[in-house]
Amino acid sequence: METQNLVERVLAGEPRAVARAISVVEDGARGASELMKAVFPHTGRGLVVGITGSPGAGKSSLVDKLAGLYRARGERVGIVAVDPSSPFSGGAILGDRIRMQALGLDPGVFIRSMATRGNLGGLARATVDAVAILDAAGYGKVVVETVGVGQDEVEIVKTADVSVVVLVPGMGDDIQAIKAGIMEIGDVFVINKADRDGVLRTEKELEALLSLAERPDGWSPPIVKTVATENKGLEELAVAVESYREFQRGSAGAHTRRGAVARWRILELLRERLLARALEADSARDRLETLALEVAEKRRDPYSAVEELLAASDRRS
Amino acid sequence: METQNLVERVLAGEPRAVARAISVVEDGARGASELMKAVFPHTGRGLVVGITGSPGAGKSSLVDKLAGLYRARGERVGIVAVDPSSPFSGGAILGDRIRMQALGLDPGVFIRSMATRGNLGGLARATVDAVAILDAAGYGKVVVETVGVGQDEVEIVKTADVSVVVLVPGMGDDIQAIKAGIMEIGDVFVINKADRDGVLRTEKELEALLSLAERPDGWSPPIVKTVATENKGLEELAVAVESYREFQRGSAGAHTRRGAVARWRILELLRERLLARALEADSARDRLETLALEVAEKRRDPYSAVEELLAASDRRS
Repeated sequence: METQNLVERVLAGEPRAVARAISVVEDGARGASELMKAVFPHTGRGLVVGITGSPGAGKSSLVDKLAGLYRARGERVGIVAVDPSSPFSGGAILGDRIRMQALGLDPGVFIRSMATRGNLGGLARATVDAVAILDAAGYGKVVVETVGVGQDEVEIVKTADVSVVVLVPGMGDDIQAIKAGIMEIGDVFVINKADRDGVLRTEKELEALLSLAERPDGWSPPIVKTVATENKGLEELAVAVESYREFQRGSAGAHTRRGAVARWRILELLRERLLARALEADSARDRLETLALEVAEKRRDPYSAVEELLAASDRRS
Repeated sequence: METQNLVERVLAGEPRAVARAISVVEDGARGASELMKAVFPHTGRGLVVGITGSPGAGKSSLVDKLAGLYRARGERVGIVAVDPSSPFSGGAILGDRIRMQALGLDPGVFIRSMATRGNLGGLARATVDAVAILDAAGYGKVVVETVGVGQDEVEIVKTADVSVVVLVPGMGDDIQAIKAGIMEIGDVFVINKADRDGVLRTEKELEALLSLAERPDGWSPPIVKTVATENKGLEELAVAVESYREFQRGSAGAHTRRGAVARWRILELLRERLLARALEADSARDRLETLALEVAEKRRDPYSAVEELLAASDRRS
């Protein structure tokens, strides 16, 4: 009953209800279940843009300016920033505060940082759920920003309709790492801080890399040069994002991509639910702490510790 | 019987057996169980150094040169590089090939890249197992390098005895991201490419950040400046790593850290085993593909899809 009321307010686009709903999905998959079942049919209307790149690439400025551009066109914009901080550093809260200064007073912009909550996982799942909530609430553009190029972060950006990879001049000597890690997820590439030395070299290297790897869908990712802090190149970025969106419509590749994303979402959620169930009993959580101590002191190996937890979980169910 | 033979050869330090054992732990947690139970009691002798930082920070050169320094002192060195590439990009293999040119012909150096294998997870667990195998095989120094600063990559580096965070000059404007993500895991900080402009500014900013955050163990992380490609500052890095290792001996903080690492390892392994069991039956994997399609087409929501998979798994067990 309470969930139904919350869902109605989310669908009506109330920012406070959206914030509340995102907190529900952050708190855990179990509580989120009823909510997300009701929200899910209303998703898929907005455009979800994923933005990733290394720290230092200026992603936050880029996201803020892109949001500003969409706002100026009268769109409501949701921003979800994934913060790889531990629960102790307070990084997400700090990030929120800094950004609120620029955009946060605008009621047409909704900003939320998602931080890791301990090591029970679920950050990627919660982030994708938060994006779905914003989408269902009528935010026409939802931007998901991930700091870092880790596996989880890459997966999150892949779930977007359009994935943008941000580079900066002077990364040439680590181009192999970029190639291996994030090249293949970029539908659009941005060279930010394009007023710096080395922009041409980076562009050439990027072009060379892109020409090596033909995409299964036949798309040639455009390269956009920006200076986000000076609001340069943002229009071009918006056009490039839109062009991929247009390309996708009706393409067979888009269907394959949606299938892969759905499969990944199911697996993330399944993993989280399985672990939560295995550690539901107080006795299981107590035993975990004891076993961790024993493994730390080399009195036990992790594998036999896990086999004990699995066997205990099986006996309870 | 076969595993026992493999374990004996690993403990005797045979590189081919080490390679074989790492392949076993890469292939899955279940097959790894018997092997790792036998290997685990022989771990904890070597020094495990974790190295992380953004792409472009020159981590690979730093790792290669540090390995060279340890080799020159007569130590056997293991290198495990975590590669966030997808199974399609071949990034890990490429990375291996490039590195083999410099160090790979030396039988006292063992190099292995660990790449993501699909989305069933287990990369972090397999990486930590690989480090344990090298440790048990008598590699006195094991260096784990992660590309990127994602959550998984941070967790992997945290499992090392000494964690090194590599920065480069000119990252000042994204210092908040660094702070949130990786500041707290650095036992030693490196400013690499220290012949570039802005090295003093980066050092000052780093010092300021470090002075803000007092560590629970009372350690003040040293800052080492290097130019890895010119072999500069590597001796100082080795000294800094050793100084933290010395500091740790007998400190209460080290015990807490080992406990947290053990707990994380158990949870990673538990998550992997639970998912593998839930998808063990052919029928479950078939159903997953069908459900993914239905979710992609918005005929189902991911939550009810997962509840169906959970219920089916419960009925089978």
